[in-house]
Amino acid sequence: MIETIQWTGEGVVMIDQTLLPNQQEFFTCRDYKDVAHAIRTMVIRGAPAIGVAAAMGVAIGIAQADPENLDAQLAVISAELAGTRPTAVNLFWAIDRMNRVYREHRHLAYEALRDRLIAEAQLVRVEDIAINTAIGRHGAPLVPDHKTVLTHCNAGALATAGYGTALGVIRAAVESGKTIDVFADETRPFLQGARLTVWELQQDGIDVKLITDNMAGHFLHSGQIGCVVVGADRIAANGDVANKIGTYSVAVLAKENNVPFYVAAPLSTLDLTLSTGDQIPIEERAAIEVTHVFGVPVAPHDTEVRNPAFDVTPNRYVTAIITERGVARAPYIESLRALMEIK
Amino acid sequence: MIETIQWTGEGVVMIDQTLLPNQQEFFTCRDYKDVAHAIRTMVIRGAPAIGVAAAMGVAIGIAQADPENLDAQLAVISAELAGTRPTAVNLFWAIDRMNRVYREHRHLAYEALRDRLIAEAQLVRVEDIAINTAIGRHGAPLVPDHKTVLTHCNAGALATAGYGTALGVIRAAVESGKTIDVFADETRPFLQGARLTVWELQQDGIDVKLITDNMAGHFLHSGQIGCVVVGADRIAANGDVANKIGTYSVAVLAKENNVPFYVAAPLSTLDLTLSTGDQIPIEERAAIEVTHVFGVPVAPHDTEVRNPAFDVTPNRYVTAIITERGVARAPYIESLRALMEIK
Repeated sequence: MIETIQWTGEGVVMIDQTLLPNQQEFFTCRDYKDVAHAIRTMVIRGAPAIGVAAAMGVAIGIAQADPENLDAQLAVISAELAGTRPTAVNLFWAIDRMNRVYREHRHLAYEALRDRLIAEAQLVRVEDIAINTAIGRHGAPLVPDHKTVLTHCNAGALATAGYGTALGVIRAAVESGKTIDVFADETRPFLQGARLTVWELQQDGIDVKLITDNMAGHFLHSGQIGCVVVGADRIAANGDVANKIGTYSVAVLAKENNVPFYVAAPLSTLDLTLSTGDQIPIEERAAIEVTHVFGVPVAPHDTEVRNPAFDVTPNRYVTAIITERGVARAPYIESLRALMEIK
Repeated sequence: MIETIQWTGEGVVMIDQTLLPNQQEFFTCRDYKDVAHAIRTMVIRGAPAIGVAAAMGVAIGIAQADPENLDAQLAVISAELAGTRPTAVNLFWAIDRMNRVYREHRHLAYEALRDRLIAEAQLVRVEDIAINTAIGRHGAPLVPDHKTVLTHCNAGALATAGYGTALGVIRAAVESGKTIDVFADETRPFLQGARLTVWELQQDGIDVKLITDNMAGHFLHSGQIGCVVVGADRIAANGDVANKIGTYSVAVLAKENNVPFYVAAPLSTLDLTLSTGDQIPIEERAAIEVTHVFGVPVAPHDTEVRNPAFDVTPNRYVTAIITERGVARAPYIESLRALMEIK
């Protein structure tokens, strides 16, 4: 499996997810502005992967900063990275974490402080893989055997430092001996399902079939889907879940057809400062993502577009939230807080 | 507005809907096999338009047949046309209608019989436009003013001989003075919404915005959608509706959010021989429609695909069915039969 993001001597190296699966090319971020550009243009995407990228962005920014004026430069670097994408809270979580480590080690000599931040960014990456393995371990028992798992977007190795959240649950279910296959929503407009999820699962030899987003309801109604598993970009204190546009629809259709709907996400995706999902900012992206596919126009010239990149699924549609510390169920206001307080 | 289908001295001329909106080219069917090919490859699509094409296909077939052996040739022509696409019942309705006219005029000299069939096919086309105007007249009062209408696929002039069913309702609402705009689902995989509905409504100066299919639920939840209007490919006696894949999902999401869900269709779309929608055959089309967009691959090589072209919306999600003879509401088993029996 190709590495999503790595810290190297050349800079922060990412597989360019805008080009997959047709081209496998790496994008090297040589400074923090490159990292911000990569997040904004979705060279790297997926909430946990964005978190790792932001941590590495802070680290490379400080590593290249003037040692005489670090506080101000950290503020500039943090603001630039924080301005890339508004919805995934892992971005802000990672920037906050790096700022906290910076403050805790501000007394050190510059080289030691720099090395500590680089180590922290690498730790965010390594921890993420371990977290996803734990999510998989908690989620695997929930996946019905001998059925199809439906997933939306890509919450896989490519959306994280490795293994994946939703796809981590699927991988763990397969590793535990279950006989399942996967239906992947193509996930317009950016086609993360078609381009990334199918590719990832093929690499692992997991049986995957591609469907268009509007087929999900038909198959949920057909009885062959045993459960839905998706990732998350931000989860409010009450369990409302912001995730890739279309997730809300899948959740409603799952509930209507009595199919369990699971969200797999690290606790860094929780935003306990928001009481409900209504407060989560939803990014609206450029029209060209909808009007063009790989540069080919699919609509008349000058077509007006709406392009919200995310939607919010109210907690009543969420059967359970699978985290690295265990499975939360309704009422989420209590179960999520309890998981956060585990030491 | 460009004509969808016309009977000309050169043959049956159709705007090639596989090329719209980037290219406006006409495809001339010079024999009935060309017509069958055009239906199969979706040069022409939309249940009422397929009905007109099939009628003209029978007419051109008989017009080019050996007068000595008409019965056998009509059977061959009818079978070839009937084998093109399984779901839209208007195809079979039109073939049956042409066969009935043939039998009723079998006693005539060949030239007179031929001319009668050509006239009948042209009548099917002209009647369809009048039917759609009546559907619009019945449907317009149902459309809430100062709201957005959501539609799926293309049930417009291009899906019919002209004016459209669902888009006919929208056109009639606008003509009646209502201030509405339209959200058009792009309708993967064939993109009839992006390519055809947006283009049609732009031609008419009706405010239309394009969304991906997976955004429909988000906007239905937002409160800005006043109603959904879609067409139909086949309606069972109980009011279950087969229509373009994704319709079921939109219907469930509309009901979940208390948004009226209307189906606009001519009575030729009714199949009273089927007690429920479970008996409607659902066409599964080629994988390449999902894996490629305008020839560009959007998924890894050899991706497995499911590609049902239609789904069935159970009657409990249908607020009303708008026909040329009036509006049917539940219980549909009674209301649809009553409309059929109006003389």
